[in-house]
Amino acid sequence: MDSNDHEGIVQDKYAGDPSGALSVRLWLRLLTCSTVIEKRLRRRFVDEFDTTLPRFDVMAALYRHPDGITMGELSRALLVSNGNVTALVRQLQDQGHARIAPSPDDRRASIVCLTPDGMARFTVLAEAHHGWIAEVFSGIPPAQQEALLGLLAILKDQIMTKGAVE
Amino acid sequence: MDSNDHEGIVQDKYAGDPSGALSVRLWLRLLTCSTVIEKRLRRRFVDEFDTTLPRFDVMAALYRHPDGITMGELSRALLVSNGNVTALVRQLQDQGHARIAPSPDDRRASIVCLTPDGMARFTVLAEAHHGWIAEVFSGIPPAQQEALLGLLAILKDQIMTKGAVE
Repeated sequence: MDSNDHEGIVQDKYAGDPSGALSVRLWLRLLTCSTVIEKRLRRRFVDEFDTTLPRFDVMAALYRHPDGITMGELSRALLVSNGNVTALVRQLQDQGHARIAPSPDDRRASIVCLTPDGMARFTVLAEAHHGWIAEVFSGIPPAQQEALLGLLAILKDQIMTKGAVE
Repeated sequence: MDSNDHEGIVQDKYAGDPSGALSVRLWLRLLTCSTVIEKRLRRRFVDEFDTTLPRFDVMAALYRHPDGITMGELSRALLVSNGNVTALVRQLQDQGHARIAPSPDDRRASIVCLTPDGMARFTVLAEAHHGWIAEVFSGIPPAQQEALLGLLAILKDQIMTKGAVE
């Protein structure tokens, strides 16, 4: 939703509770930034490479495992819903960028890996992806980027710890 | 995808280019934080209130417009895909939380608003939502939350300005 709108509600609602308002404003701003940037990256993958961000994410995971991983391991390595992983891999297979073979250890399991063409393609896509991201942050001085990275590390530690306890 | 994994690729890839690595690490960390928090909020809406985050977002937008807004305005007020807005409104209508009526100005347009029950329900949901968010950030001192809010404001300005120019 439109974050300015939502921030408005929150400010009205928490006029007498600045600490409550702070965390909610922080969350909405974080969500707005990540949503807007992600939308832009999605659009650029489609417009410039006729591919998708989820397909790129699968390629990135496979690139890290040149010897291949099982479909189950691949699902777990992705933060997105698992349901679509098989479909994404089949798309990559159709394009000649991924290969699915029975596991040598367990014939019932499938091992997925990038083909040499897929490796080469991923390198091109990753280069573009990293360039777009550098562009997004280019107006922010490196010292502020470092400060933001540090604060997000604190937040990440918090949520990962809490998630494990829940 | 798993951000530690992805951060690993980036570190390997940009070993000789620390500035390129910085913005990509920043983006992946931002994405991980917002994805993990959003997943947690989604789960809590389902588990504790048998409702969904997108439905809550629609209610929040309607709450801001007690006199009702058109379906088109509602679509534009939401950052999510427009396709599902009508379906979400119908779900709220079935629960007695929203009302759809022909616009008095234009009989072809529909005006949507929350019912009194919907208003009361939204207040309960918003209270819980804000409590969950306060919980997420509770381990971070207010001064660091303020610093993060300030840096995200700079980022938001950057991306909104660039988006408008593109």
